[in-house]
Amino acid sequence: MAARIEGSIEDRAVGVLGGGQYGRLLSEAASRLSIPVLALDPSPAAPTKQISAASLLSPSLTHVEGSYTNGTDIHSLAEKVDVLTVEIEHVDVQALFQIREKYSTTGGSLGKGIEILPSPETIAIVQDKLLQKQLLRKNGIPVADFVDLPDPNVENVSQAAKTLGLPLLLKSRRQAYDGRGNFLLRDLADVQHGLETLKAPLFAERYAVNVAHEVVVVLVRNAKGEVRSYGPVENVKAGKIGHLVRAPLRQGGKDATLRAQATSEKVIRSLPDGAVGVFGIEFFLLDDGELIVHEISSRPHSSAHYTIEASETSQYENHLRAILSLPLGSTELKASSATTLNLRSTPESADEVRSVVRRALETPGATVHLYGKKEAPGKADSPKGRKIGHITVVGPSDADVNDRIHKIIGSFNDDPLLPKPPKSHPLPLVSVLMGSDSDLPSIRDAARILDQFKVPFETRIVSAHRTPTLMNDFCKEAASRGVRVIIAGAGGAAHLPGMIASESNLPIVGIPVKGPTLDGVDSLHSIVQMPRGVPVATVGINNSTNAALLAIRILAITDPKYAIAIEDYRANMERVVLQKGEKLNELGWTLDGGK
Amino acid sequence: MAARIEGSIEDRAVGVLGGGQYGRLLSEAASRLSIPVLALDPSPAAPTKQISAASLLSPSLTHVEGSYTNGTDIHSLAEKVDVLTVEIEHVDVQALFQIREKYSTTGGSLGKGIEILPSPETIAIVQDKLLQKQLLRKNGIPVADFVDLPDPNVENVSQAAKTLGLPLLLKSRRQAYDGRGNFLLRDLADVQHGLETLKAPLFAERYAVNVAHEVVVVLVRNAKGEVRSYGPVENVKAGKIGHLVRAPLRQGGKDATLRAQATSEKVIRSLPDGAVGVFGIEFFLLDDGELIVHEISSRPHSSAHYTIEASETSQYENHLRAILSLPLGSTELKASSATTLNLRSTPESADEVRSVVRRALETPGATVHLYGKKEAPGKADSPKGRKIGHITVVGPSDADVNDRIHKIIGSFNDDPLLPKPPKSHPLPLVSVLMGSDSDLPSIRDAARILDQFKVPFETRIVSAHRTPTLMNDFCKEAASRGVRVIIAGAGGAAHLPGMIASESNLPIVGIPVKGPTLDGVDSLHSIVQMPRGVPVATVGINNSTNAALLAIRILAITDPKYAIAIEDYRANMERVVLQKGEKLNELGWTLDGGK
Repeated sequence: MAARIEGSIEDRAVGVLGGGQYGRLLSEAASRLSIPVLALDPSPAAPTKQISAASLLSPSLTHVEGSYTNGTDIHSLAEKVDVLTVEIEHVDVQALFQIREKYSTTGGSLGKGIEILPSPETIAIVQDKLLQKQLLRKNGIPVADFVDLPDPNVENVSQAAKTLGLPLLLKSRRQAYDGRGNFLLRDLADVQHGLETLKAPLFAERYAVNVAHEVVVVLVRNAKGEVRSYGPVENVKAGKIGHLVRAPLRQGGKDATLRAQATSEKVIRSLPDGAVGVFGIEFFLLDDGELIVHEISSRPHSSAHYTIEASETSQYENHLRAILSLPLGSTELKASSATTLNLRSTPESADEVRSVVRRALETPGATVHLYGKKEAPGKADSPKGRKIGHITVVGPSDADVNDRIHKIIGSFNDDPLLPKPPKSHPLPLVSVLMGSDSDLPSIRDAARILDQFKVPFETRIVSAHRTPTLMNDFCKEAASRGVRVIIAGAGGAAHLPGMIASESNLPIVGIPVKGPTLDGVDSLHSIVQMPRGVPVATVGINNSTNAALLAIRILAITDPKYAIAIEDYRANMERVVLQKGEKLNELGWTLDGGK
Repeated sequence: MAARIEGSIEDRAVGVLGGGQYGRLLSEAASRLSIPVLALDPSPAAPTKQISAASLLSPSLTHVEGSYTNGTDIHSLAEKVDVLTVEIEHVDVQALFQIREKYSTTGGSLGKGIEILPSPETIAIVQDKLLQKQLLRKNGIPVADFVDLPDPNVENVSQAAKTLGLPLLLKSRRQAYDGRGNFLLRDLADVQHGLETLKAPLFAERYAVNVAHEVVVVLVRNAKGEVRSYGPVENVKAGKIGHLVRAPLRQGGKDATLRAQATSEKVIRSLPDGAVGVFGIEFFLLDDGELIVHEISSRPHSSAHYTIEASETSQYENHLRAILSLPLGSTELKASSATTLNLRSTPESADEVRSVVRRALETPGATVHLYGKKEAPGKADSPKGRKIGHITVVGPSDADVNDRIHKIIGSFNDDPLLPKPPKSHPLPLVSVLMGSDSDLPSIRDAARILDQFKVPFETRIVSAHRTPTLMNDFCKEAASRGVRVIIAGAGGAAHLPGMIASESNLPIVGIPVKGPTLDGVDSLHSIVQMPRGVPVATVGINNSTNAALLAIRILAITDPKYAIAIEDYRANMERVVLQKGEKLNELGWTLDGGK
């Protein structure tokens, strides 16, 4: 098959309803495969249009000026392309149903019919927050309680408040995004005000007062029903300039990660068959551990911008692959850790945002994306400014990435993940365990070495015999908290290192601690002579220095800075010994200078 | 300062001489920063132009139809931009000198003057292969011997053959790239033919018959003279569809890497001050270990396409940062291993190339870049087809990346890096050492476990006492060959693990091997009781199973598939023990079934 576009493997053209940043980033992915993307947007210089000049390849492939809420404009775009998709859900979905009816086998730029993905049925559900909630509840997926208000008035809103409690959220069913279409009702006296603010139809929702973390899972689904997930991430506010997305999720433990993963796959499978493309499932992780679905989106999501730099295939390329029936790409992380700073800018904050961007250019591992948009106060009811770009930072560890992000953000200092030395680092790579505080003197050198090598680490007291539950919990969570090596010291029966190795997949370094009897040989044999199948990397008796150096050699295989530091350490050791040798030679072996 | 382009941090527009793939990939990087790029190319639909519609942002920012060898066309581009750069060296450099003379402080799109980077002086040297060679030789940088032929004829070429030997290379000084402009003279009878084939002026160069590896270092330099290097990579031919670029360099040992690095930095510092932007330094690594510089290019290089997916900042973004005086970005790898397949296509091979691209879409970690070019036989004197795209594969190890590449290429089976089990893998992550073949029975379980977990590994006999030089060489090279963990077994005095730990920065797992006396306690104490500063991760006596499992736990921190495998292994172990328990319960403790 010869392709219409030179050197491409795909004849079809893709049309996007909307021409903003999602379309632009989708277009970036498409141009790598020489697949033309046309955008529908009122602005002739919309972000998507700036980087796609498909008309140079084929004169009919021109962008459209118009709105995704206008059926005629949508028809104009449809006629030029073969696959239609969206970068926002709030489109005129009736026009999409009509186009599919009319052009499912003929029409489009190749005359072979127009595909619409995700399907109009999917978009119809996702663009209506009430339909979303009803579908989720029907499928047994946890959501906040809600009450339909088909004909909202003071009386039935007050009734809803009795059922759901105050404060409650009054929500517009449609056109509700980016903070718009919500009214937080704290007092029944404000009902009238709320009703005037929002556009009907409405519904009421219990307000989750105890949200501990905002978690998002982005997934891609193709027409065969194959689903791949990028795994959960956390959204964190970052002052007035935007918010952070941290990948992978470290909050809520392994259990929250597994539940978010499983629930998001259940959500995507509860959508109609035509749910093809990228979907974002937003969760609230409550402070009692409950995980409820907040919202679904049926397009690339700002919580997965990081996938451009950090994943084997970005969400944008995977959206394109899904809607074009190309094989789905791998969603594995290729960087160890990634954080995206989503930037918002107003005319007032523009200078601050530009300083942030400049600092990002000076920061290793940071990639800046600017969307070709002017700073603006945002649309009428969104006071937070316009999404003008994002910055993704990758690095060899969470601690490095967080450090880099804070160099970029500067003023944002209330992050609980900022280290406060000399206590344990909140994003440790190494966990140093002792069975009792009496082991501390024998373990302290490990902490000193880790500190000297600037390794983020934590110290904990965990006893195999006295706190078995704590030990189990620790083992279950360590890897999902980002810990890569565990050092455990123990004396006497010295069961801690072996027990930890039995319940964790991480490499465990064991330090035999010398007790009052048997010279530590008891601990050594207990730690080193593990049964086949459960290894402990044992170092010499009381040699916690070597335990830390071994942990750093292990970390060095993912982070070259530690390899360089170990090299320096060894060179320095050699120098010190040579100097001692010289001194010995100078002073003579009688040790008193030969006097 | 408010930017002219919406939401950008940069007012200036960039003009590129040439509109091919390098300009296109540069433009991709530029559009992320909302910096407009205009191209000069005879084709109105040149690859670069397809993805840059800067005229939407400002009507004067239009591409130019014309040639980079035509001074008038270059002037037309220059007037529209503020910084001029090249995607190929073979431009009309006199026009660049004139533009700089005329517009250094006025002119350009902002009226503030036009900067040309790299400088015309730099381009003048790089576009002339003889000037390149002379500069290198003057600076003491090793190159193949050469003889200038200012007025080439049969007589002086024959004279040159006496000096340089046969075969020799006749080379055009200018317009020589992509295989063009070279004539391999094997016999003096062909001199006349050679002179007719090539465009004067010419020079003659000794033909390096003993090239073992083609090595390339790509570096970026800014106007302050700061240099950052992406480190050496290897170029390998991959049949008729193109060639591979493997990063990081594994051939030639650590020494070749260090020398290539040092020499390339010397080369870039020997160029004029205006040598700003990305430079590629091509080397031949000869089979006697000598490293000679083959060629310099003053633009992004096909050997660093991999930096788009695998490095913290791509060569394209760094070229842009350098010529715009923005801070240089980090050149660190963010993926453990990367290989790029540079595709060439002719009308005859187009179907095969398309199959390769399709397989790449099915391969994890592969990213396809198609340049929007038609397959073509290439220009008159290049028979190899046109560079229509490239595929970069990243992965957690060299072995994974090589495996993925071979899934994509399919037919290319003569690669020495393909594993031939059950011997040692040519791209090992784990090296299993024993002091003597008599240790093999105690070590064999380690190999079995590594094989069962599909870990690429090698086995070697290295003795601390009998082959100390081999041991030193092994330690020096292991990390640079991609080895991440060393397992060493030893009995009796058992010095091997500790000695290896003293000469390498890698994590060393030591297996005490039980000898005929002392029950292995001698080996255990010798291995585990290392002095402070030099750790060995010691496992139980003869417990080579645990040594391998420990090595895999260590690898798991860079590769999630091993973490999953360890989890499965542990679960299986638990199941087996539980089943034994059930059986014991069923049969009764008398062990004869209670009979």
